[in-house]
Amino acid sequence: MNYAQKSPRELRQLIREGKLTGHTSGMAKGYIQANVVILPSAYAYDFLKFCFRNPKTCPLLDVSEVGSPSFLYFGKNADIRTEVPKYRIYEHGELIRETDDITDLYTEDMVSFLIGCSFTFEHALLEAGVPVRHIEEAHNVPMYRTNIPAEPSGQFKGNITVSMRPMTIAQAIQATEITSHFKNVHGTPIHIGSPEELGISNINEPDYGEPVTIKAGEVPVFWGCGVTPQSVALDTKPDIMITHSPGHMFITDIKDSELSN
Amino acid sequence: MNYAQKSPRELRQLIREGKLTGHTSGMAKGYIQANVVILPSAYAYDFLKFCFRNPKTCPLLDVSEVGSPSFLYFGKNADIRTEVPKYRIYEHGELIRETDDITDLYTEDMVSFLIGCSFTFEHALLEAGVPVRHIEEAHNVPMYRTNIPAEPSGQFKGNITVSMRPMTIAQAIQATEITSHFKNVHGTPIHIGSPEELGISNINEPDYGEPVTIKAGEVPVFWGCGVTPQSVALDTKPDIMITHSPGHMFITDIKDSELSN
Repeated sequence: MNYAQKSPRELRQLIREGKLTGHTSGMAKGYIQANVVILPSAYAYDFLKFCFRNPKTCPLLDVSEVGSPSFLYFGKNADIRTEVPKYRIYEHGELIRETDDITDLYTEDMVSFLIGCSFTFEHALLEAGVPVRHIEEAHNVPMYRTNIPAEPSGQFKGNITVSMRPMTIAQAIQATEITSHFKNVHGTPIHIGSPEELGISNINEPDYGEPVTIKAGEVPVFWGCGVTPQSVALDTKPDIMITHSPGHMFITDIKDSELSN
Repeated sequence: MNYAQKSPRELRQLIREGKLTGHTSGMAKGYIQANVVILPSAYAYDFLKFCFRNPKTCPLLDVSEVGSPSFLYFGKNADIRTEVPKYRIYEHGELIRETDDITDLYTEDMVSFLIGCSFTFEHALLEAGVPVRHIEEAHNVPMYRTNIPAEPSGQFKGNITVSMRPMTIAQAIQATEITSHFKNVHGTPIHIGSPEELGISNINEPDYGEPVTIKAGEVPVFWGCGVTPQSVALDTKPDIMITHSPGHMFITDIKDSELSN
């Protein structure tokens, strides 16, 4: 089945029916995929403020009404309770389990947040001839927890998570220029060059995803990563927080081209 | 006294001491001035979401912690209770009075929002040779309530307010290009050409500010306006809402050049 050419709606239906349970990378080509954070309404104000204060790691795309499983712009007819291939359930900051359906957990009190994902700007990098190594190597992007604190908001605090793509310095400059037009999906890099400056001791051992080959003459380029809310949850310890499982994104109804700015 | 060359801190002190009570237009040249909205914390989440959903009329610059009179980025040492030259007090949607000090009203439960103001991009327009008529004519910009609904958020709903600057079509194109780099202060125009399409029946009778001369060959160009929360308050009727008085802005510590994107 050619998932790249399917519409977001068709794919979300397959996911809802349990016929699609894997990574969503490469699916619904040209459409934005989003990181997902679901919280009880008592946490919604502080988390919304956290997104506003941390636009490079948590660029907010949309937020549901309290109790609503759909979104005003990015998924009018979506059902966030069943249309993500894999969810992670965190209780008091601990990852309890993964599941493919959260209907039993999504009460009238829940709020869902959609956060920009780097899949969007990777497409633009590839079109400009900038290498995206983990796509070449056909696996998930390497992600690292850093020692850089996010701007806190209420009880939400903790260090940011970054994703990494190796390239030459010339390509890093080009990639910075390109991603400056994608502020809603992390924007420009957080850092270029030294993993140590971010507190990353071993570039070959990412905290999430898989390592990539760094060729001679290449430097690691780090972008803010939408997994940040998951690492922040470890510190914040909300009663319950539901997210997507890394790589298993929510496929929105909005096209990449609508987001470039 | 040359207010254009004074620092934001000096000016805010003069305002705090009651030595400066008028419009802030032209003061602290090169620094961002902001619209102000102050609400009880019970309204903060819906208003923050309202700003997120209405970036052209309510571009959020900063938000205080609950009960704090200062801001993380835009006024670390500021006191929002005394450093705006004139405030408006709205109760249940009605403008009750204006005052120059809200210390008695600013409880531990209040949250302050700073919203981008067109003063910032007008400076860039002037530098590019695009006329800004109300500055030429040395008075406040004309503002109009429209028939265009803002995107609602919780109880916050109502029509948007726009500001207007007349110019030629060629200048309107240039102004659109320039303001596309100022998304945090309203960004590109809402409309070019026909006041009727916005429900404005008489362009010479603005709802706020003063009318400007429209010369032969010029069209009216409309931008989202930070007075929108005040018109929205008329519909939303929060118990209490405090804003700046139009033209009497909060002078922030951040430079215009830090906001261009």
